[in-house]
Amino acid sequence: MREPALTEYVDTNRRRILEVLETWLQIPSISADPERAGAVVESAELVAEQLREARFEHVQLLPTGGGSGAPAVYGDWLHAGPGAPTVVIYGHHDVQPVDPLDEWTSPPFAPVIVDGEMRARGAIDDKGQVLYEIEASRGLLEARGSLPVNVKFLIEGEEEVGSPHFEALLTERRDLLACDVVVVSDTGMIAPDVPSTTVGMRGMVSFDVSLRTARLDLHSGMWGGTVPNAADLAATIVAALHDGDRRVTIPGFYDRVRPLTPREQASLDAQPFDEAKFRAQAGDVGFLVGEKGFGALERVGVRPTAEVVGIHGGYGGPGIKTIVPAAAGFKVALRLVPDQDPGEISAAFRAWLADQVPAGVELTVTAEGAVAPALTPIDHPSVGALTTAIERVWGKPPLFTREGGSGPEEALGRVLDAPVLFLGVGLPGDRIHAPNERMVMDQFWRGLLAAGELLIELGSLVQFGGAR
Amino acid sequence: MREPALTEYVDTNRRRILEVLETWLQIPSISADPERAGAVVESAELVAEQLREARFEHVQLLPTGGGSGAPAVYGDWLHAGPGAPTVVIYGHHDVQPVDPLDEWTSPPFAPVIVDGEMRARGAIDDKGQVLYEIEASRGLLEARGSLPVNVKFLIEGEEEVGSPHFEALLTERRDLLACDVVVVSDTGMIAPDVPSTTVGMRGMVSFDVSLRTARLDLHSGMWGGTVPNAADLAATIVAALHDGDRRVTIPGFYDRVRPLTPREQASLDAQPFDEAKFRAQAGDVGFLVGEKGFGALERVGVRPTAEVVGIHGGYGGPGIKTIVPAAAGFKVALRLVPDQDPGEISAAFRAWLADQVPAGVELTVTAEGAVAPALTPIDHPSVGALTTAIERVWGKPPLFTREGGSGPEEALGRVLDAPVLFLGVGLPGDRIHAPNERMVMDQFWRGLLAAGELLIELGSLVQFGGAR
Repeated sequence: MREPALTEYVDTNRRRILEVLETWLQIPSISADPERAGAVVESAELVAEQLREARFEHVQLLPTGGGSGAPAVYGDWLHAGPGAPTVVIYGHHDVQPVDPLDEWTSPPFAPVIVDGEMRARGAIDDKGQVLYEIEASRGLLEARGSLPVNVKFLIEGEEEVGSPHFEALLTERRDLLACDVVVVSDTGMIAPDVPSTTVGMRGMVSFDVSLRTARLDLHSGMWGGTVPNAADLAATIVAALHDGDRRVTIPGFYDRVRPLTPREQASLDAQPFDEAKFRAQAGDVGFLVGEKGFGALERVGVRPTAEVVGIHGGYGGPGIKTIVPAAAGFKVALRLVPDQDPGEISAAFRAWLADQVPAGVELTVTAEGAVAPALTPIDHPSVGALTTAIERVWGKPPLFTREGGSGPEEALGRVLDAPVLFLGVGLPGDRIHAPNERMVMDQFWRGLLAAGELLIELGSLVQFGGAR
Repeated sequence: MREPALTEYVDTNRRRILEVLETWLQIPSISADPERAGAVVESAELVAEQLREARFEHVQLLPTGGGSGAPAVYGDWLHAGPGAPTVVIYGHHDVQPVDPLDEWTSPPFAPVIVDGEMRARGAIDDKGQVLYEIEASRGLLEARGSLPVNVKFLIEGEEEVGSPHFEALLTERRDLLACDVVVVSDTGMIAPDVPSTTVGMRGMVSFDVSLRTARLDLHSGMWGGTVPNAADLAATIVAALHDGDRRVTIPGFYDRVRPLTPREQASLDAQPFDEAKFRAQAGDVGFLVGEKGFGALERVGVRPTAEVVGIHGGYGGPGIKTIVPAAAGFKVALRLVPDQDPGEISAAFRAWLADQVPAGVELTVTAEGAVAPALTPIDHPSVGALTTAIERVWGKPPLFTREGGSGPEEALGRVLDAPVLFLGVGLPGDRIHAPNERMVMDQFWRGLLAAGELLIELGSLVQFGGAR
């Protein structure tokens, strides 16, 4: 039984909410662009203002990286009473760059609604999803005078540049952010008629590998065929990273991969999958590849992978240059799944790599960061609350999906020691990080209602309360 | 029995010859640098002046490429009488760039003699070797009043940029350049006490290969593990180009490779080889590689090879970018030996490549030129003349070597339909194309004497004469 007051709130406030969204989407808060630093702060201030108007307290911009990073925004409402759980709601207010600009059918920072879609950079990633969370709390507060749980908003400003200061922020502000559950609104679902929620995200360890076989490039006529070729060696190592079944050859790589539970497997098997559509969305790829014995959804979500991000060595200009390259390198991102351990996998990769490189070659390996895989146990009562909330709004319970990517959510769960729920209304065609990003407005309004339902459901979970 | 008049000429003219060499080495005739075009012309004019002073006739600059290229220099002396053979002497007057400049111990265009070595860009490659040829003719003409053979000098100005107009020049001027034998002075020998001469040069076909697997790079979190990775595919193809024995896997690649004759094999086996020295000269490479069953000298000279000149795909900047690269490419140079055919090998490479690339990947292959392998038959009488000339000066007959590289010499032999002799005094430590290029002056003076002896020996070969 859905909360009628929230439906009524949406009806009454629709125009104002849209105006806020459009105003916000006009702010070019591109965190990757130093020239947009002012716009990112302006965006943070708009979030703060919306939180204040919603009657949140302790609203403040949280500087990051000693002031060198874009600020996050914090605000809380902590009057749910004794025993009520505390929820941290996470999103981000910065956006991706807009290149290539000439592929946009309307300017990225001039939001328009066409065919029921809001078109603008940041529409779905993540301003729209932050706004429905704020409005859900505001609606419940206006209708009921209180919230069923304590709520703390944490809206980051550096997500699109890899959240470089986020874990430090969480660690420093751990007391301020103490909570029982985290709700992340920065993901998607399979389709409007196939609601789903993310329960896992792959982790990642990545490396830059440099190889040097001689002091300088050598003339391929004078030396070719006798001296080691760094570009050839780099290619050989990259090729050796997978076997003929596209399994990663690093010894022990799969040892700790946790099999899916029957319920997880059933949910995954229930997901619709249209290969032609999937390939088209990937940019018209001609075929799919991947680890033998698994389907595309498993390969992208529940299986670990090794992806070569780049390989470079030798001459790359026009025509030909008759050299034996002396230096080459590659970058590789290993996506991890539960219970692979970033430290263990890093060590295994380094050991495997050392075996591939003959003595006499200068090898330099630089770790480019490590994120553990994250998994929300689907039997946790908070997942039940989310399931109920989604079912109330979309008419059927969500399927459980895994995201292939890694984000700041892993740090949220780990540092705050709380389960992480993913309420996300994005759709596969939303073109995030690409020209013509959109948000389907029906999904936005449903997200608002579901966000409210989730707070109500979480409030009814007595087993949460009192611990903090 | 050496020509005493030439020894006397050297003694008398030593100072003047050195002055000419130093003047010439001060001209920065870098053909790769458009800003040095004037210097290349100045260098050509110096050659022309030296030819005129030596009493050569029809001395002229030959424009190349419709005037877009640096000029070659021509001059002849055609009064050897009926039945005397005609010799084209080839060299080049342009030089390599000088980067990295800060590694030179003295300025590249301020020639100095230190420890019996002339140090300057172009000292050995190829101004020194052109000058001893001119001076050998001049010396014989001054001492005897005539030359034993007709001599035509052809001194190119674009060798260091790959002789882009050379074959067209040869074809257009075929009548002017008609000859019985070509003498090339642009190579080296094993050591001062191990004289050698080149009898073969590897040919080459080279390709630029581009692969595209999707329209744009994809996010490795969302797609990694399911979509084809262009960088991975490029690496896999490059790795597949050789088997575990470092044999090239292109079907039919070795079919036409002509085995060495017993005399060729014996000469090759007699060559000294110091692996530690070879590796140091290669820029401190840690080890040698190559086709199983062959030594380094065979691998570099008499065996065909496939050398990856460069491979590039995906992200190459600092840190990591979590993409699945949509495009990648590589360049490969296949070095050919007699009797491999460039057309046949090109077709075999393209067929092999097509087999490596799955349907649905956009493949673009661009041929970057083809040069046939060249071989001077060591039983040809003119090779006997060269052997005698070298033995008279260095005290022992030369070993027969093969050069790993390809040059304009192949076109010379083919277009002019004449055997090509290589009289070269370069040494392995001469640092051609590198900082601190040098010429050992003892080798220069010996080259001058040998060049004269060679003309005398060629003049005694009656079977040559009269044909033209």
